Parts: sequence; C-alpha cells; structure tokens
Amino acid sequence: MKVGIIMGSTSDLPVMQEAIDFLKEMDIDIEVDIVSAHRTPDKLFDYSKNAHTRGINVIIAGAGGAAHLPGMVASLSPLPVIGVPVKSRNSIDGWDSVLSILQMPGGVPVATVALDGAKNAGILAAQILGARDTALQDKMLAYKEGLKQKVIEGAKSIK
Amino acid sequence: MKVGIIMGSTSDLPVMQEAIDFLKEMDIDIEVDIVSAHRTPDKLFDYSKNAHTRGINVIIAGAGGAAHLPGMVASLSPLPVIGVPVKSRNSIDGWDSVLSILQMPGGVPVATVALDGAKNAGILAAQILGARDTALQDKMLAYKEGLKQKVIEGAKSIK
Amino acid sequence: MKVGIIMGSTSDLPVMQEAIDFLKEMDIDIEVDIVSAHRTPDKLFDYSKNAHTRGINVIIAGAGGAAHLPGMVASLSPLPVIGVPVKSRNSIDGWDSVLSILQMPGGVPVATVALDGAKNAGILAAQILGARDTALQDKMLAYKEGLKQKVIEGAKSIK
Amino acid sequence: MKVGIIMGSTSDLPVMQEAIDFLKEMDIDIEVDIVSAHRTPDKLFDYSKNAHTRGINVIIAGAGGAAHLPGMVASLSPLPVIGVPVKSRNSIDGWDSVLSILQMPGGVPVATVALDGAKNAGILAAQILGARDTALQDKMLAYKEGLKQKVIEGAKSIK
Amino acid sequence: MKVGIIMGSTSDLPVMQEAIDFLKEMDIDIEVDIVSAHRTPDKLFDYSKNAHTRGINVIIAGAGGAAHLPGMVASLSPLPVIGVPVKSRNSIDGWDSVLSILQMPGGVPVATVALDGAKNAGILAAQILGARDTALQDKMLAYKEGLKQKVIEGAKSIK
Amino acid sequence: MKVGIIMGSTSDLPVMQEAIDFLKEMDIDIEVDIVSAHRTPDKLFDYSKNAHTRGINVIIAGAGGAAHLPGMVASLSPLPVIGVPVKSRNSIDGWDSVLSILQMPGGVPVATVALDGAKNAGILAAQILGARDTALQDKMLAYKEGLKQKVIEGAKSIK
Amino acid sequence: MKVGIIMGSTSDLPVMQEAIDFLKEMDIDIEVDIVSAHRTPDKLFDYSKNAHTRGINVIIAGAGGAAHLPGMVASLSPLPVIGVPVKSRNSIDGWDSVLSILQMPGGVPVATVALDGAKNAGILAAQILGARDTALQDKMLAYKEGLKQKVIEGAKSIK
Amino acid sequence: MKVGIIMGSTSDLPVMQEAIDFLKEMDIDIEVDIVSAHRTPDKLFDYSKNAHTRGINVIIAGAGGAAHLPGMVASLSPLPVIGVPVKSRNSIDGWDSVLSILQMPGGVPVATVALDGAKNAGILAAQILGARDTALQDKMLAYKEGLKQKVIEGAKSIK
Repeated sequence: MKVGIIMGSTSDLPVMQEAIDFLKEMDIDIEVDIVSAHRTPDKLFDYSKNAHTRGINVIIAGAGGAAHLPGMVASLSPLPVIGVPVKSRNSIDGWDSVLSILQMPGGVPVATVALDGAKNAGILAAQILGARDTALQDKMLAYKEGLKQKVIEGAKSIK
Repeated sequence: MKVGIIMGSTSDLPVMQEAIDFLKEMDIDIEVDIVSAHRTPDKLFDYSKNAHTRGINVIIAGAGGAAHLPGMVASLSPLPVIGVPVKSRNSIDGWDSVLSILQMPGGVPVATVALDGAKNAGILAAQILGARDTALQDKMLAYKEGLKQKVIEGAKSIK
Repeated sequence: MKVGIIMGSTSDLPVMQEAIDFLKEMDIDIEVDIVSAHRTPDKLFDYSKNAHTRGINVIIAGAGGAAHLPGMVASLSPLPVIGVPVKSRNSIDGWDSVLSILQMPGGVPVATVALDGAKNAGILAAQILGARDTALQDKMLAYKEGLKQKVIEGAKSIK
Repeated sequence: MKVGIIMGSTSDLPVMQEAIDFLKEMDIDIEVDIVSAHRTPDKLFDYSKNAHTRGINVIIAGAGGAAHLPGMVASLSPLPVIGVPVKSRNSIDGWDSVLSILQMPGGVPVATVALDGAKNAGILAAQILGARDTALQDKMLAYKEGLKQKVIEGAKSIK
Repeated sequence: MKVGIIMGSTSDLPVMQEAIDFLKEMDIDIEVDIVSAHRTPDKLFDYSKNAHTRGINVIIAGAGGAAHLPGMVASLSPLPVIGVPVKSRNSIDGWDSVLSILQMPGGVPVATVALDGAKNAGILAAQILGARDTALQDKMLAYKEGLKQKVIEGAKSIK
Repeated sequence: MKVGIIMGSTSDLPVMQEAIDFLKEMDIDIEVDIVSAHRTPDKLFDYSKNAHTRGINVIIAGAGGAAHLPGMVASLSPLPVIGVPVKSRNSIDGWDSVLSILQMPGGVPVATVALDGAKNAGILAAQILGARDTALQDKMLAYKEGLKQKVIEGAKSIK
Repeated sequence: MKVGIIMGSTSDLPVMQEAIDFLKEMDIDIEVDIVSAHRTPDKLFDYSKNAHTRGINVIIAGAGGAAHLPGMVASLSPLPVIGVPVKSRNSIDGWDSVLSILQMPGGVPVATVALDGAKNAGILAAQILGARDTALQDKMLAYKEGLKQKVIEGAKSIK
Repeated sequence: MKVGIIMGSTSDLPVMQEAIDFLKEMDIDIEVDIVSAHRTPDKLFDYSKNAHTRGINVIIAGAGGAAHLPGMVASLSPLPVIGVPVKSRNSIDGWDSVLSILQMPGGVPVATVALDGAKNAGILAAQILGARDTALQDKMLAYKEGLKQKVIEGAKSIK
C-alpha cells in the first residue's frame, strides 16, 4: 500500500510537503518524485504507465500554471489521481492551475482538491486506500475526532 | 463493494445520470438517493454517519449553487467523497458550485470533478474501488483502450 | 434580545471582532462561539436547532473558503442568519467564500454582507432586532448621524 | 407588520414576483412599488426616509446592472434592507448587480441574497419579522418541514 | 470653467490626487470635496442638483467597493460625470468598484476610467472642457507631444 | 457641433444604432463611419488626427473583443473619446472588450460606458457638448424628467 | 512546407475548419488529424516527436476544457505550436481552455490565439512560414489589403 | 535573421529582459526599442510598416493594461507578432493585458504567451525562425534536453 507523490518542479515542494507529512503521520508508505509534464514528458509516460505495476495505489500530482501533470498521468494510469493546483509565480491568482486540473474531459477524471490544498490531497489518498478497509476508516474517524477537539479547545480559549 | 450516489434535488438527476450509467455498465453496485444539505439536514447526518457501516465504499455527491452537500458529507463520513458541481438554474455560470465544492478547508477533502462532470465521478469511483484491486485496474485499462479506439475511428472518419 | 456570533475557526476572530465590537457599543447582548461546519458538525446541529429556544434572535456566522457554516445554520434554524465571507489563507481572492455563502438555493436564505464585512454584519443584526422596535430604529438613525459627521469633518480637513 | 418591496423597473417584476408570492402565502402584509435610484432619485429619498414612519418594518429592493437601489435605501433608512441582484439585459453574467449590492462599505449593510433570489428575500423578510416573535418562528419551522417533505417525496420517486 | 472633484472618503485622496494635480498643472479651476453616497446622502443630493448652477462644468467622482457615488451624481446632474473606480481596502481586487461604476443602466451614463485611473479622469475632464474650445484642444495636443518625448527619451536610454 | 460615431465593423451597427438614434432625437449633428483599428489602420490614423479639424467635437467609438479602436483614436485625437464595449461573437462574455477599452494607461483616457451601452454613449456625448452650454444642460434635465415620468407610470401600472 | 492541424476530438472540427479553409485558400499544404492528449497519449507522443522529421513546419492544435494537447505537443516537438482554445460543451465559458493553453510554464511556449480563433491560427501559421520568406510576406500583405477593402465597402454601405 | 523586441514603456523592461537574454544566449540577432501604441502612435506605424523591409523576421511586443501594442503592430506588419501580457501597476490582476492581447478579431492574429511570459516569447521566436530550418530545430531540441536535465537533477536532490 503506497502513495506516489509527484510534482512538476522542486519549487512546488513547500506546498506539497503537507501531503508528505500527513501520510507519514498516518504511517502510509510514500514515494516522492519530480516529474514535469512539459520538461520530462518521457519520464511522465514511464511513471504513469508503470506506477500501478510497481505497487503504487494512488497518485498525488501537484502543478501550477497551465498544469498538465495530473491530467496526463490520469490519461495513462488506471489508478485514481489526485490533483493539487499550486499557485505558482506568474499564476493568474491560481485560476490557471485550478481550471487546468479540474476541467478534465469525460473519460479521464482527476480528483481535484483546493488551491495549494496538499494536506487534503494526503487525507484523500488515505481515504481512498481506506475505501474498502475498515481499519483505515477507523483511523480516519479518529483523525476527524482530533480536528473536532482542536475546535472545541479553540472555542474554550475565546470565552 | 458499493457506490452511494446522492444529489441535492431531483433536478440534478439528468446530470448525475451519467455516473449511474457508467457504474452500471461496469457492474458496480450503486445506491441512489436524494439528500439535501439545506432541506433535509437530518437525513444528511444519518446518511453520512452510517454510509460506511451500511457497506458503501465511496460516495458521489452532486449539487448546484452554494453546494454544501459534498463538503458536509465529507465532514461526517470516513469514506472518500467525490463532488460533482452542477450548473443549476440561477447559478453564476457554475462558478458558485465549483468553488463551494472545491475550496474545502484543510482536514476535510472533497475529490472534485469538472462542472457537470458526473461521468468522470463514476469513473473516479471505479478507480478508487480499484486502488488496491488489480482486476478492477485491468477493467479501467480496458475502458481506456475503448476511449482510444473511438478517437482512432474519429481520426479515420475525417481523412 | 441576543445576537449569536459564531465562526469556523479562531483564525476568523480578527475579522469577526468588528461585529462583536459594534454590538457591544450598541449595548446589545452577544454570545460568541467557534462552530465549524466541517470539524464539529454535531455542534453545528445542536447550536442551530436550539439557538432560538435559548433566547438568541439573530445569528451572525463567519467563515472562509468553501464556507458552509452560514448556510448550514440557516438550514436548521428559524432565525435570520447573517453570513460574513472571510478571506482566509489559500482563498481564491475571497470569491470562494463569497459565492459559497451568497448563492443559497431557494428556501434557505443567508443575509450576506461584503467580504470581511463583519462590522456591517453587526449593524445589520441591530437593524433586524430593530425591525419592529422604534427605539432601536432611533438608535440606528443616531448612528447614521455619527457617520455623516465624520464625513463632514473629513471634508473640512481637506479644504 | 409590513414588508416594502421595491424594484428599479417593471422589467424586474418577473424576478421579484417570487418575494411577493411568498409573503402573501405567509399572510404578511406587503406594499409593492417601482423606485429607480437613477431615474427617480427624489422618490428614492422620500421612500427611504419615511418607510419606517409609515409602518414598514423590512425593505426588499431588487435591481440589476450597477444596482444602486438597495444600497441607497440602506443609506437613508434605519430599517434592515434586503438586496436582490437581478440578472438584467446587458448584465455581465450578473456579476455587476451582485457586486454592486454586496460590497457595501462599513456602516451601511445590505442583506444580499443570491442572483435572482427573490424568493429567499421574501423568506428572509419573514425571518427578520420573526426574530423576536416565536409564533412567526414556528411558522418558519413549519415551512422548513414542507421543504423537507418535498425532498423526501422526490427521493421516493427516483427509487 | 471649473471641475468638481469629489470622493467618498478621505482615504480616496491619495488616488484622487493625480486628477487634482493634472488639472492644476493645466491651470483649470477645481473644487475638491468629500461627498459620500452612503454616509451623506443629503449632501450628495444638494451637490448634484446644484453643481451646474454653481459654475461647475464637469464632475469627477471617485469611490471604492459598491461605489454608488458617480452613478448617483449622474442621476441628479445634467453635467458629464467621470467615475474613478478606487481599489479600496476589502475590495475584491477592484472588480466591485469597476462594475458598480461602469455598468450603469440606459439613461444615466458615467464616463468610467481605469481602476485607480484618477490622472486619466483629470485629462478627460480637460478634454471635455475642450470639446468645443480649440485653444484647449491645442493644449491637449501639446500634452500628448510631451508624453511622446518621454517615450522617445526612454527609448534612447535603453539603447 | 458634431459627434463622430465610428465602429470596427458593420456587425457592430445594431448595438451602435442606439447612440445614433439618441443624438438624432436631440437634434445633434452626427457623422457615422466604419473604422477598423486592425483592418484599416491608415484610415484610423487619418480619422483620428483630423476629426477635430473637421468640426467634430466628441468621438464615440464602439468595438468588440480585443477592442483597440477607442484607445487608438484617443491616442491620436485631442477630443474626448467615448468607448462602447460591444459583446461580439467569440467574446469571452464581454470581459475582453470591457477591459481592452477601460484599462487605458495614464495619459490617454477613454470615457468607457457599459457593455453594449451605446445609448449611454449618445447621452454622454450630449452632456459633454453641454458641459459649457446651459441650453443643452436644460435639454438634458428635460430628458431626465422624461425618464422619471416613465418610471412613475410603470409604478402606477403595477398597483 | 506543411502545417499539421490536430484537434482533441471530431467535435472540435467545426471550429478548426476555419484554419483548414484559410490555409487551403493560401495554397499551403496541410495534414489534418485527431490526436487526443487524454485518450490517445501514445499517438500524441509519436505525433509530436516525429512531426518535424516528417516535413511538418508548424503545428496548430485545438482543444477544449482542461486543454492539454497544445502544451504537450509543445513539450515534445521543436516546432512552433499554435494553440486554439475551443469553447466546448461543459466549458466554464471558455476560461478553462484559454488558461490551460495560455499559461504555459517557462521553457515551453504555446502561441495562443483567441477563443475559437482557428482562422487566426491559420493566418499565424502562414505568417510563421513567411517569417523568412518575402514572397509569403507579400501574400500576407495582399490578404491584409483584402480585409481593408471589405471594411471600406462596409463603410460605404452604411452611408 | 533578426528578432525585433519592443515594449510600451521602460517599466516593462524587467519583464521583457528574459526574452532578450534567451535570444542572446541562442546567438540570435535582436533589436530592442520602446514603442508605445498610445504615446508614440506615429512611431508604431513606422516601425510596423517597415520592420519586415529592415530585415526583421519576428516581432515580440510586450505591454500592460489595455495593451494595444501587439495587436496594432500585427495589423500593420506581415510578420508573425508575439504578444507578452505584462502585469503592470494598476492592472486588474493581469486580466486586462491578457484579454487585450489574446482576443484579437479574425484576420489579425497575435501569438500570445503567458502573463509576464517573456522568456517563452523568446523561445517561440526562435522556434518560428526555425520552422523551416532544421539546424535551429536541433538547437531547440538541445535546449529541451537541458530543461530535462535540470528536472532530473531536481528529482535527485529531493530523494
């Protein structure tokens, strides 16, 4: 059980780190790599065609601007692909990466999360791994319980 | 192995039908229901808290306008939730449902697909069920092969 | 006569403080709490179903991103709900919270104010309490007179 | 107990009719008029300054394009003003009326509802009148129960 | 021959100063005032109804957010009104003031210039005064010649 | 005293006709022509450089898409130029023509009116001609009175 | 000297036909094909890597939604790639295809034309072929002369 | 073989420098100038009409706001024109320059690159010069190989 985390450039790492951290915290195996749709298209092909045969179960792909990485991986892999729109330098307020990842044509879905929402990508990957695994579902419920406790403490602090 | 498909109103059914059709075509068990975040909040709670205990593995939720259904289900269920933004009457070109579903806060992801992209929601649900199931992965690869053949025939037809 | 002020996270407090301050200044009773639609959905339910039985007359709810708090409270409470879109971190320039709060479906209104417009939410709450109370209306007219005086002084200062 | 419903032009009537119908259905007294901020500014002043002395408790104002009616009424009246952005001919997809009504400066709130959301304006007016009136609150709860029953019937019909 | 320059708040002065400076440079008489559509509606009425009888020939009005000042002046005055959308605090990237000023209904034009474009408002006011005055037109041509010389010098500097 | 009305293409005529009609109704002399910034740049130059020497006092220029006509005329003529953004075929909802005309750089203003707002361009041209002409100002006040009467009749009709 | 014209789906043909027609009219050799980035990624690779070795000099690629075709071809081919954003069904008003094609990262340009602007893509391809070919440049000047004549005739027709 | 690089103002130079640097690095002859569509329209005409007779093969034009420079050059020159939208001061997040350059009418294309994408403009110019020149195509392939190597090194660094 492993999550492949890829991004278009090392400059995306500060955003994508939140996915890495969450999955580590959940003791889920990960593999991190840089794969650029536009600069290393051959690597993109190799990665996407073989990820499922190498033991990867879910792919998280983050990219900015005219972000083609998540969609191209999704066109080549049978695995669920989670796309993280990254608000890169020169982005038009993030709209470019959001729409380039979200508006995929019929037949090739990308599970898109919020702009710079790498943490949620990590959580979604865990939920996908847990779709047919009640032990993992219980772990997710425990995580939700933790979120709740933090809000409750916050509520106390303002009173 | 079952996919729960819910929507905010019967008026969403023409859009959501594509998810239903795809999953039937793939012989994946489905359960369809109307659950409105704003008109039946109690049903929303019951549905979301119990879906995973009733044998549902993935939830597809479609809604329009200020679409709160997918996000509220995601806040209550440990299952992966796929959100379909529906371009409803009085929508501001669909931007409202897209942003209401996509821009979830850290901790509670919704796997968002394209505006009116219910077919892709169905495909993504199948990919999620297949994340740890190589037989289902092979089925998805065969589906992709079918998409390719249609394009190739289209290419022939214009020559 | 009491106004309930809730917000999704303690990080919304700096914005929401303006509503608190205005209502205190007007000697209107308030109750402040943190209620997260996505992290404490049970608390959201309890709060919304019981606010009117606990003596609350108007609810102000502030939230950012895919902001579901105001709309979900409005779906459960018979009270008027004022929504404050908060421009949170990772927001797409505030459009997400504005549209998630404003574009409610028929049947479940949220009285939406400007982005980060918590002060106006406080004023609107006072006006709502004063809808059938001429003493409070006179107070609002006096407040408007104060606004006018400030502009008149500003006009003098630039001459 | 009366709701004043005004709009900028007779062409806004088809949209605004939903507010009229809802309030009639709830047996709440209404007064309907055409008041144009740009074509009858004197009438706007008279109306806004005197509405509260004539027994009106809440004002609903609908307008399209660079919609100044709701905000100008709010600047002159101590009453709560509900603004309905109308998607008029030549509107830029409704964004102009939405932003002209919603983004009011500090000091002068307008309770904005969804684009063409006149029905919700009617409901919100009833909730405002009921803010300190438990009989009216019970009526709103009964209305919500009706919404719920329609969804439940819809759910049955698709099974 | 005089230009009236008004703005909604003293906080708009840094932006509006460019109009003041340009007209002073052109030796055109000006009168500067603060008039808030929402905080001093009575002053707005007096100002707009009487400006043309007091010797003012063109009005420049700057405002931010849901900017109603230029349009309301235009509804009351027979003079040409130039609107300057100001990007105020809490503005949604300036879109609110741009659309609130630009999208006026048929019958009541506002001559809108670019966001924060007060300098151009000053130039436009001079051009309007010069519409039937060839001496002023020659002055504008001389101004254009100056713009050209600056570009030509800039071109030299980069070679 | 004459208004020059130009447009980029005969396909803009249905929109621009409203300016023509208004000015004819006001007995103001007009001259209508097709001048395309992109297809007849030489004509654009001749027109813009000589309009003021040929007795034209104000120019109305309408164009769609990446609309360069109003701005280029303004760069060459000392006259006030009114720009009408036209929602042409293939336009992105009119945003392209609005922004191409409105967002002129410092030094070269275009008096922009609403999308497809040719009628307001005609009215604004009359107001510009009347900036220093009280007889024309009285005519504009009479026109405003006519607008008011129509609203008052509309108000009667709905009672 | 040949232009390769590709598109993501046969449904793009009505839009792309204008490029085909223009280039035929100019007697420039073309080759038309369907290549889908998402449905035939292998064909995309073969096409892009070999186009320049097969005698193609410029590539025109049209696609809608999250349009990845032009950018992926550009990542693999040394040839200039012209991208045509197509306003497809379910598109969010064309913004998705515009931004997915335009906002390419540094290193991999796509020469983007207007939404549904296939005719301009054809003209641009001819201009690119003519960049170092004065005979072709003369042809383009003759084409421009034709555009001018049409406008001049249009101008006559409205007088 | 020469590329003409022009921009509307010296303030665009920091953005446009990337095009200059890339073409120098590729040993392609360049000529840099300031040409303002709005401030030096005569120079614009001279430049555009004569560039191809002076040995220029491709033109890169950068401008911000209501950017008319690239489109006006394209209307006058038979050469391919690359437009660089520059995010200038007072720009509405860059949307104005993007749409003013991209949305050219049929007949007059501008090859638009990303917001502030001057580097890509330089690369595109090289690709255009290489459209019929296999030696230059090989150089572009070598450049792509360099991009790839950087990504591969980046990938190593994060492992």
